[in-house]
Amino acid sequence: MRLAIVSTGHTKFGKLKQGIEELMLDVCNQALSKANTDIDAVDAIYISNFSSSFTGQCHLPAVLASKLGVDKEITRVESACASGGIALKEAAISILSGFYNTVLVIGVEKMCDTPIDQVTQILASAASQEEIKHGATFPSLYALMAQRHFYDFGTTEEHLAKIAVKNHKNALNNPLAQFHKEITVDDVLKSRVVASPLKLLDCSPVSDGAAAVLMTTEENALKYTDSPVYYIGIGHDTGTIDLKSRETISTMPAVKKASAKAFAMCGLTPPDIDVAEVHDCFTISELLQIEDIGFCDKGMGKQMIEACRTDIDGDIPINPSGGLKAKGHPIGATGVSQVVEIATQLRGEAGKRQVRDAEYGLCCNIGGTGATAVVSIFSR
Amino acid sequence: MRLAIVSTGHTKFGKLKQGIEELMLDVCNQALSKANTDIDAVDAIYISNFSSSFTGQCHLPAVLASKLGVDKEITRVESACASGGIALKEAAISILSGFYNTVLVIGVEKMCDTPIDQVTQILASAASQEEIKHGATFPSLYALMAQRHFYDFGTTEEHLAKIAVKNHKNALNNPLAQFHKEITVDDVLKSRVVASPLKLLDCSPVSDGAAAVLMTTEENALKYTDSPVYYIGIGHDTGTIDLKSRETISTMPAVKKASAKAFAMCGLTPPDIDVAEVHDCFTISELLQIEDIGFCDKGMGKQMIEACRTDIDGDIPINPSGGLKAKGHPIGATGVSQVVEIATQLRGEAGKRQVRDAEYGLCCNIGGTGATAVVSIFSR
Repeated sequence: MRLAIVSTGHTKFGKLKQGIEELMLDVCNQALSKANTDIDAVDAIYISNFSSSFTGQCHLPAVLASKLGVDKEITRVESACASGGIALKEAAISILSGFYNTVLVIGVEKMCDTPIDQVTQILASAASQEEIKHGATFPSLYALMAQRHFYDFGTTEEHLAKIAVKNHKNALNNPLAQFHKEITVDDVLKSRVVASPLKLLDCSPVSDGAAAVLMTTEENALKYTDSPVYYIGIGHDTGTIDLKSRETISTMPAVKKASAKAFAMCGLTPPDIDVAEVHDCFTISELLQIEDIGFCDKGMGKQMIEACRTDIDGDIPINPSGGLKAKGHPIGATGVSQVVEIATQLRGEAGKRQVRDAEYGLCCNIGGTGATAVVSIFSR
Repeated sequence: MRLAIVSTGHTKFGKLKQGIEELMLDVCNQALSKANTDIDAVDAIYISNFSSSFTGQCHLPAVLASKLGVDKEITRVESACASGGIALKEAAISILSGFYNTVLVIGVEKMCDTPIDQVTQILASAASQEEIKHGATFPSLYALMAQRHFYDFGTTEEHLAKIAVKNHKNALNNPLAQFHKEITVDDVLKSRVVASPLKLLDCSPVSDGAAAVLMTTEENALKYTDSPVYYIGIGHDTGTIDLKSRETISTMPAVKKASAKAFAMCGLTPPDIDVAEVHDCFTISELLQIEDIGFCDKGMGKQMIEACRTDIDGDIPINPSGGLKAKGHPIGATGVSQVVEIATQLRGEAGKRQVRDAEYGLCCNIGGTGATAVVSIFSR
């Protein structure tokens, strides 16, 4: 049985007025109305949400049921910033099991109402508390990974800056992106140092937002759309939370394993992929994933960037949406938002940011410093 | 395909020295060693945990992977106090889908290191924030439900007290229970009023603890045990989070619907059940569930209590473990702990609290004021 994505929903990302329940309802209604159906057609809902500490609200399944005014089988899943990918996987499994036919996946986070020092603290709850206790934060952990990559492979700050520049450029054509501001390599290099070598413009922002995906069986799909996107590869891996336990920190072992599983499931290889959304919470993260997914050999990411191969008109466009860097990163929504972009690209509906002839797409959604990785592969 | 529970693990419940990661590791190791196997036999792990606010630690899947020293496919699910039931359901679905053969379910919560006023606030995050804003807390919401039940059906404080007395008596024979203290109806009635008519001894305590269940396919089961317990009925429902939206508050609609689904799946009816663990976070909650599951007609719970039918030697023993009231209620662990008790009963391994000739058992795990309900049915 093939799984089909038949519809999507997506709010603007950024600082939004709506509360978390309105954001969920908004993307739910978008996905249903685009599929010309209503909530009765949905057997179950999976909600991806990172931390209740942003809103003081746990038990989102019941909040959503109230907002919808129906009762349903609703479940929340969490795996730090990889929550969205996990929700998608759980939804897929629930259909494969025969338990459900049609499932809605909603990713949501509401972060901008929380003071920034508190946001940092909440984000740090996704890291090893031992490392946090010794003064680490996510920017500093990723900075260590970047420094090691520089040392191992000769990558430079300019390479990372070019990733930010590309993603900001792509976001100009995404009306739902948080930032619509072109930047230069010089802007990145001159922006405030957050944790050397990472500067402010190497980091994804704090965001509110939600995204949704309506998934069903292949045989049901044509009820909802003429252009379903098929979900053909699922890879998931959870490794050690702390950097200190890893053999090397210039690679993300969970990304390698999750990618291998996803490719094995659908019989494809990295060169088959026409477009990818990867988890660029920091620019170094995009670089590591380009290598660990297998778009190039380890250490060769810098050459891909130099050759503009990951640009929107390159041979493997990465983050045409603008990525986490410029589209925004409302944690629980991110993994679902990646799938919305890939579905939009494979359907040829991405407008000015459309990648040419995209047949196969990939999403890489990670949690923490890559302790959790979910890689999903789609075909049109 | 039938699902089989082949092994379990369970810490003592109460104020424990171990941290959340040690608690997870402890029950994991118990479940594996009792099944004479190791972590390599486990394809995936589902973790039930309510709130990271107790420990400051999100991303428990990666914490567990670190502790185990392996990489695995690990997922956390949350649905307030029903998280454990949800984890069990997700694990079952994952096996039914063919994605995995053998899955470990771990429920865990570490609450006792958190100051009590903060615990109350964290628990309140599972309720409607609108009702909380108007001064409600879980004891007061359940008190409203109790008052309405008294008004509708003539139930009294004495009936509720008898539930607490029974559960404390049962816990005397459960070495892992938090309380080993016999109490009388008078003790309950004279204990401090928390929210009238609920008194201190009508309320479950704050607890640390963990529980685990190892689940596999029927054909794999005999590799691990001679006495598997079969998971034959799964019912899940999510309704409105707030009391004010419900037609009546002397019943839990989600429990009725989840029960109906679980019974329909296995073709049983309430009189077939020989033993049940229900979610007595407050004594009124046990009473509501006895009725809403269908062990008696609505409003007749008081007569079941008067006739001692839910005692350990009654015709439908409820909470032989001591229940949440006396065994303890470490939120994320509770739903998994209920399954451990039922599996133990159906295997005839419950020692002094063994129910006679138990062939079919049921667990009812709820979230919030019953907005989420998961009903699971097992056979030996």
